[in-house]
Amino acid sequence: MHALTKVIPPALAAALALTGATALAAERELPVKPTAGDVVKASLPAEWRTLDPEHTLYMELPAGRVVIELAPDFAPRHAANIRALVRERYFDGLVVLRSHDNYVAQWGDPDEKNPKPFKTAKARLDAEFTVPMANDRHFTPLPDRDGYAPQVGHSNGFPAGRDPKTRRTWLAHCYGMVGVGRDVALDSGNGGSLYAVTGHAPRHLDRNITVVGRVVSGMPLLSTLPRGTGPLGFYEKPEMHVPIKSVRLAADVPEAERSRLEVMRTDSASFKAVAEAQRNRGGPWNKVAAGYVELCNVTIPVREQKPDGAAL
Amino acid sequence: MHALTKVIPPALAAALALTGATALAAERELPVKPTAGDVVKASLPAEWRTLDPEHTLYMELPAGRVVIELAPDFAPRHAANIRALVRERYFDGLVVLRSHDNYVAQWGDPDEKNPKPFKTAKARLDAEFTVPMANDRHFTPLPDRDGYAPQVGHSNGFPAGRDPKTRRTWLAHCYGMVGVGRDVALDSGNGGSLYAVTGHAPRHLDRNITVVGRVVSGMPLLSTLPRGTGPLGFYEKPEMHVPIKSVRLAADVPEAERSRLEVMRTDSASFKAVAEAQRNRGGPWNKVAAGYVELCNVTIPVREQKPDGAAL
Repeated sequence: MHALTKVIPPALAAALALTGATALAAERELPVKPTAGDVVKASLPAEWRTLDPEHTLYMELPAGRVVIELAPDFAPRHAANIRALVRERYFDGLVVLRSHDNYVAQWGDPDEKNPKPFKTAKARLDAEFTVPMANDRHFTPLPDRDGYAPQVGHSNGFPAGRDPKTRRTWLAHCYGMVGVGRDVALDSGNGGSLYAVTGHAPRHLDRNITVVGRVVSGMPLLSTLPRGTGPLGFYEKPEMHVPIKSVRLAADVPEAERSRLEVMRTDSASFKAVAEAQRNRGGPWNKVAAGYVELCNVTIPVREQKPDGAAL
Repeated sequence: MHALTKVIPPALAAALALTGATALAAERELPVKPTAGDVVKASLPAEWRTLDPEHTLYMELPAGRVVIELAPDFAPRHAANIRALVRERYFDGLVVLRSHDNYVAQWGDPDEKNPKPFKTAKARLDAEFTVPMANDRHFTPLPDRDGYAPQVGHSNGFPAGRDPKTRRTWLAHCYGMVGVGRDVALDSGNGGSLYAVTGHAPRHLDRNITVVGRVVSGMPLLSTLPRGTGPLGFYEKPEMHVPIKSVRLAADVPEAERSRLEVMRTDSASFKAVAEAQRNRGGPWNKVAAGYVELCNVTIPVREQKPDGAAL
């Protein structure tokens, strides 16, 4: 706390921010508050969970590993098909085909004429654009209103929208979310072509495509890929494709080679505090608290464990 | 239009989307509608403007040119100081210091001990976090509600928030917007350190920092930079810095070497149609129209002119 500055109570600070009395607020000082980082440091071990190795993918790119957590609650058929594809080693030797600035990176089979065959996986799957609300386990709503969904919040580590009237729920296209490429037909997606959001959340895709997971580690390996210069950011020449060495389920990788990640439980008190730290930031650097946090601006903390299980 | 599909009128489609009747809507087909690209193609020459060479910066990086349009209406003091710095050749030889994944790229002087001196530019400037609403010329409000501002829309090519009660307006931190780095003190920014938003819009920064312009061309040169591994995405070693060859005002560059860009007027009918094309997308690929567009999801079209002045 700065002894020489006039400190205003958080309620008043938020009110000032909400009524937009910025000229006034800017002359005062917001109270010092814990940052999201402070909340992470003070969190309890029980507020973190490890990833289920049967639903965690390791995509090995030349520059390193991308770790994807699948969301079987939201896309049971697609998660199962992707797991089948991974165990067939379908993705090994395929490529990142597309890097569209401020939008997505997409990977799959570059050979449209002689596509790599599926062995056990299905070529067509019924869409899972939305699922019954009963599926979104541990859902914690955000109090903040949203333009794209009647209600938003987090379900077991994933940002989600839901509609209490229709009792449907769906994953939201925030940064790092992974979706299933499809053609016009609803059942044309199968998980053989996937994309990750690398730009400002394209929330208009919500409920139009099956979202199947989230990148929990390694986003920079996708977000910094050179942008494709063809339409929709596709790479125009095969030599621009980024090769995928392999995709494996964590369960199929020797324990010593697994990424040791923990994700903060989104139904924990600390996660609620993380969202609040982003909704109403404290001083002294911040001069006005937004009094609001947009769904995709709520960071879902991920950290590495030490080999003995304690957090670094 | 697909003859064999059941076409529902746009109003009903939007209503279905808004009430979230997705199971139903997904079985129907949205009407085919012009895309944002179609609107651009059909737009009139008078709906485009060229950039003012006195308020356009060319930042030359090893990989190419980043074109920045300054916003003197929103930050008159900072725009003037940056123009003074550019004419002093202050930025020539400085570097991109920071690339923070899903946040910002920032450039300036890496030498804190022996900083490059200013000649005519001012070292401290009063903040311009908000300005009187009279400044936001040609403001066209979006009908879509926003969580961070009482009203949002576009002013002469820039996304902006405003508060009719306090009659203040400010630029919004959307992808590609350029802001002025500062320390804790309100007057500590001067334009010598700038950043561009490279990730999901950090709108909590709105009204907390002076926003001075927008990257209209060359974003991939900043968004694909390797991420810094130090705190806040700063590069940990000087050899990781990305050198800035030069920054020039377009007015000071021979005509033949200028970028010939046109920006769609944000107070034009076509721009309104671009926003609508993003708010309520048509079929056949889209199955549900969002009925909403978030401020930072409204693309502001930019195109190149042919040397004779006609659009490519």
